[in-house]
Amino acid sequence: MISPLDHLTQLVAKLPGLGPRSARRAVLFLLKRRESLLLPLAEALREAASRVQSCTHCGNWDVTDPCAICRSALRDSSVLCVVEDVADLWALERSRAFKGLYHVLGGTLSALEGVRPQDLRIDALIQRVAAEQVQEVILALSATVEGQTTAHYVAERLAEAGVLRVTRLAHGLPVGGELDYLDDGTLTAALHARR
Amino acid sequence: MISPLDHLTQLVAKLPGLGPRSARRAVLFLLKRRESLLLPLAEALREAASRVQSCTHCGNWDVTDPCAICRSALRDSSVLCVVEDVADLWALERSRAFKGLYHVLGGTLSALEGVRPQDLRIDALIQRVAAEQVQEVILALSATVEGQTTAHYVAERLAEAGVLRVTRLAHGLPVGGELDYLDDGTLTAALHARR
Repeated sequence: MISPLDHLTQLVAKLPGLGPRSARRAVLFLLKRRESLLLPLAEALREAASRVQSCTHCGNWDVTDPCAICRSALRDSSVLCVVEDVADLWALERSRAFKGLYHVLGGTLSALEGVRPQDLRIDALIQRVAAEQVQEVILALSATVEGQTTAHYVAERLAEAGVLRVTRLAHGLPVGGELDYLDDGTLTAALHARR
Repeated sequence: MISPLDHLTQLVAKLPGLGPRSARRAVLFLLKRRESLLLPLAEALREAASRVQSCTHCGNWDVTDPCAICRSALRDSSVLCVVEDVADLWALERSRAFKGLYHVLGGTLSALEGVRPQDLRIDALIQRVAAEQVQEVILALSATVEGQTTAHYVAERLAEAGVLRVTRLAHGLPVGGELDYLDDGTLTAALHARR
C-alpha cells in the first residue's frame, strides 16, 4: 500500500517539466498552503475535468461546445487558422492579432511516430472548409520538418477541396531579436521576404 | 468571471518551478489525460488535504500523528537529527543512512526575513531533548550563512539544556564529484577533515 504522499508525488512528477525532485518540492509547497492552494487546486482540477470539453468544431478546450471563439459573432468565419495544438491556439489568442476561427489538427504527421493523416483532424478541416464558405486558410504550423511536411500535405488537400487562398506564417527576425543571434536559415528567409 | 481553465492555470503557475507558460503546458497535458492523470491528481490532492497532517513530535508530514518514523520501534530514539525542512528529512530518509529520529525546525533564523527563534520549533526541540533522554543531536542544517547561524544558536541552547553530544554534518567532496569543480571553501574543509 503506497502512502498518499508518495502517490501524490508520483502523479505530480508526471507533469511536463517536473521530475521526482521538483514534484516533491511542489507537494511540500502545497501541504504548507492547504487552504490557499492545495484545496483550491484540487477543486479547480475536478471542475476542469467535469466542465471542460473539446470543441467539436475547432478542437479548442472550453466549458461550452462549440467553444467561445466558434460561437463569437465578432470573429471572421471566412478565415481559418490551422494549428497543431491547443497551446498554439492560445498563443495566437494572446497575441490578439487574429480575428478569424481556428482548427486544431491535434499533432503533426510523423512517419517516425506513426502519425498518419487519418490520426489528425484533417478530414474534419476539409469538411469545414466546404461547409463554412472559408475564403482563406492560414497554416500556422511549426517551422520543423514535421510541421512543414504536415503543412504541405494539408495545403494539397485544401487545393483539391478548392480553397483558393492558403497562406503560411512569415519567417523572419523575432521582434526585439538581435540579428547576430539569428540562425542562417531564418536570416536568409527574412532577407528574401524583405519589404 | 474567470474561466475554469484560466483559474486552474493560475493555480498551477503558483507551484515552485512553474511559470505561466509551463503552467499552461501542464494544464493542456492534464486535459488530454483526463482519466489517467487529471481525475487521479484531483483525488490525490483532496486525499492529501484531508488525511496528511504535521507530526506534533517531529514536524514531518504523514497520514498519522505521531508519524510513521516517530512511531517506529526500529528507530534509535537516542539520536535526534535536526533539519530545516521536511524536504531535508525526506532526503535523509532516501539515503537510508540515518536510523534515529528527526526534528524539523521549519526554517532558519534570518534577521533579513524577520525569522526569530520563537518562529522555529526550537523550544519544542529543547523540551524533547529533556523528555526523551536524547544522547546525541545531529544538526543537519544547510551550509549557508542562515543555516550555520541557526546551527550555532541551536547548539548553544542544547548545551544549556545539558546535551553532551551535538554534532554537525561533515563538509567534503561529494561522492562522485570531481576535485576540479569543488569550491575552495569545501576543498579546504575536506582537506582539514581528512582521514
